[in-house]
Amino acid sequence: MDLLSSEITNQDVIELDKGVFHSWSIQESATPIVIAKGQGCTMWDFDGKEYLDFSSQLVNTNIGHQHPKVIDALKAQADTLATVAPATANITRGLAAKRILERVPNRFKKVFFTNAGADANENAIRMARQFTGRDKVLSAYRSYHGNTGAAIAATGDFRRVPNEYSRGHVHFFNPYLYRTEFNATSEQEECERALSHLTRVIECEGPSSIAAILLETIPGTAGFLLPPEGYLQGVRDIATQHGIQLIFDEVMVGFGRTGKWFAFEHFNVTPDLVTFAKGVNSGYVPVGGVIVSEPICEFFKSEFFMGGLTYSGHPLAMATIVATIDAMEEEGIVHYADEIGSSLLGPALSALMEKRSVIGNIRGKGMFWALELVEDRVTKTPLSNTKMGQIKQKLTELGLLTFIVNNRIHVTPPLIIKPNEIKHGIAIIDEVLAQFD
Amino acid sequence: MDLLSSEITNQDVIELDKGVFHSWSIQESATPIVIAKGQGCTMWDFDGKEYLDFSSQLVNTNIGHQHPKVIDALKAQADTLATVAPATANITRGLAAKRILERVPNRFKKVFFTNAGADANENAIRMARQFTGRDKVLSAYRSYHGNTGAAIAATGDFRRVPNEYSRGHVHFFNPYLYRTEFNATSEQEECERALSHLTRVIECEGPSSIAAILLETIPGTAGFLLPPEGYLQGVRDIATQHGIQLIFDEVMVGFGRTGKWFAFEHFNVTPDLVTFAKGVNSGYVPVGGVIVSEPICEFFKSEFFMGGLTYSGHPLAMATIVATIDAMEEEGIVHYADEIGSSLLGPALSALMEKRSVIGNIRGKGMFWALELVEDRVTKTPLSNTKMGQIKQKLTELGLLTFIVNNRIHVTPPLIIKPNEIKHGIAIIDEVLAQFD
Repeated sequence: MDLLSSEITNQDVIELDKGVFHSWSIQESATPIVIAKGQGCTMWDFDGKEYLDFSSQLVNTNIGHQHPKVIDALKAQADTLATVAPATANITRGLAAKRILERVPNRFKKVFFTNAGADANENAIRMARQFTGRDKVLSAYRSYHGNTGAAIAATGDFRRVPNEYSRGHVHFFNPYLYRTEFNATSEQEECERALSHLTRVIECEGPSSIAAILLETIPGTAGFLLPPEGYLQGVRDIATQHGIQLIFDEVMVGFGRTGKWFAFEHFNVTPDLVTFAKGVNSGYVPVGGVIVSEPICEFFKSEFFMGGLTYSGHPLAMATIVATIDAMEEEGIVHYADEIGSSLLGPALSALMEKRSVIGNIRGKGMFWALELVEDRVTKTPLSNTKMGQIKQKLTELGLLTFIVNNRIHVTPPLIIKPNEIKHGIAIIDEVLAQFD
Repeated sequence: MDLLSSEITNQDVIELDKGVFHSWSIQESATPIVIAKGQGCTMWDFDGKEYLDFSSQLVNTNIGHQHPKVIDALKAQADTLATVAPATANITRGLAAKRILERVPNRFKKVFFTNAGADANENAIRMARQFTGRDKVLSAYRSYHGNTGAAIAATGDFRRVPNEYSRGHVHFFNPYLYRTEFNATSEQEECERALSHLTRVIECEGPSSIAAILLETIPGTAGFLLPPEGYLQGVRDIATQHGIQLIFDEVMVGFGRTGKWFAFEHFNVTPDLVTFAKGVNSGYVPVGGVIVSEPICEFFKSEFFMGGLTYSGHPLAMATIVATIDAMEEEGIVHYADEIGSSLLGPALSALMEKRSVIGNIRGKGMFWALELVEDRVTKTPLSNTKMGQIKQKLTELGLLTFIVNNRIHVTPPLIIKPNEIKHGIAIIDEVLAQFD
């Protein structure tokens, strides 16, 4: 099968795509765009149209498309051993764990590998529940942690029982000054009131019933909600006080996205469990995982861990993790994301906001930015879905791939994006937003 | 990194493995075996020890290790486009859906791709719940459907709400004559009584509250429980009568494992949704999925599907699906599994049971067999965990990889296994069981 044959057209692919059921959509609502190939920050369809990838697909191709070192490592692993059962010891898996553990604080001792972010959070929650003997998990209303929630409950065998939690999940409000839930007028006030609110929820739920607080270090799909100074430290203190395990979901923000290996480094706060996926290998092979701190590792030395999966530590995924981390290190990609994010991307977006009043707020760090679009800046009324749909369509027509969520444009290019590519992408956004100003 | 360097020893890998947290285990209970490479049904460690893979790892490498056509396709895709967002139209994804849809009854129209079996079941359940507007899912006590159950409940954003099901899951007893729950004395009686029991559970739960019945076509980890003649047809009739969606979990038995492309072909029964993983691409890249029937596809033409995942329809996984199915077709692998299963593997295991009274029951089809070991054949007392552990250890020492669950040895070699390899593996089992007879 020649995947790039000149005889293939976009229409052929659209035709074949009719056999595919798509994620999070009305199946006949839109014709998906066709992608034939990619390189760095650029993608092409079969009819020769070129796209600039300002989304890193779903915020995963941190290293860009088709990085040669990662592709080579993937092919070398494929030639040696494509798959192996998780109960074995595999050299590439050991090396991948080592690469990850070298980049987190010393209190983390093991890595549990999963297929993606959802089951990373599943297993972090499972570890916290077994470790504490408690069942409730607190998480934020403004959050996304994955779409799984039924398979183990449907399971009949003995593995269901320790994974059944009748009371389960409680949600609280996380800080978000632009649309404050707490009538706050400053970041400091938002922080203090959000911590008071969390404290009250914990008191009302009963601290000794709570296994974990699960938080995206910087909530992603919910809107790139940078926590105010002191918030994460406050949550850490509350968790420690009550023996609650703190889980940071770094699925979207981990592995360089915000200009540090992990976003929690910006806040000098260390959680008990870290979940990851996406950037760890730029999504070249499906993978995710949990980084486990020493007390929890110690507990499971003699306790049976009630979780597992067929493809845990899959060799191909492991090979791409090792190669991705090595390439990011050798090429200084995380530092570059930090540098270019603060010196070029951030300032350019601020300048765009000066110019276009349809932008109500911008937030971000490194290569992780959101533009929040509003009908007007005083009422902060979110730009309508219809207009957002038009913006998405025009951006795509002009060759810019972005990730649009609600009233926001998420600007999350590969970390390797060049200055001229950033300028080109922002010029396209400017051109489109001009029509909505 | 030379993955097969002569300087690497097993001990090096064991050392590196200390950074890896393992599935379903006490973390310090055992030293995992080391695997360096594989080919066909054979695997080797770094010190030169050879293993015969009688387990297909976790019943996934149906096509054997390192099939050259699949490895070549994987590498070709890696050279073109390793990853792409699920919202795009991708040619390899379309071809993979086509290959699968060509092998199921005509009522199936689309394929939704996931990362593995657990999230395949998650999404089949989700589709059944949205389609019926009902919440309960009935499944068997003797079953395993994956280990996910919390991520969407922990999620705070709007995607949680349509995926919250307070009443949720109800379990029933499925047929298993050897250890009947119904005091049955024949397969026919077991079948009739199991259907009566299911009918009563449905009446008591309220038929109009039940979205789906989820069943492994032949329950796998629960013990290779071949349903008696008429059972699945009976379940189909009950489901149809009440507008309940019938989901067959073919994660373990699909794609040739039992000598047919799908195990439900043995029973002439067609479900509404089919879930798959493992054999679809022999696990060379993590993948799973749901095959969706026409009425459900029609429903979602205009309804928003409340599920999705970053790596849905991942190009590398798709390339291995296309190549695996093509190779299985070209090389007649499914027919071979049927033929050699019924002419050699089945009879050889029956002969072994004649010889070794520690075997209480054997069950299977194609390349999917379980030996149930007992203290004695009259009481049927399962062989103790201690003895099963010793058996596992001795089999491994003698170079045979099997999957041991409770008091059973599961014999599930790659479908391409040669007659002399089958004889060699059974001779090892015979030698080990002789010590427990």
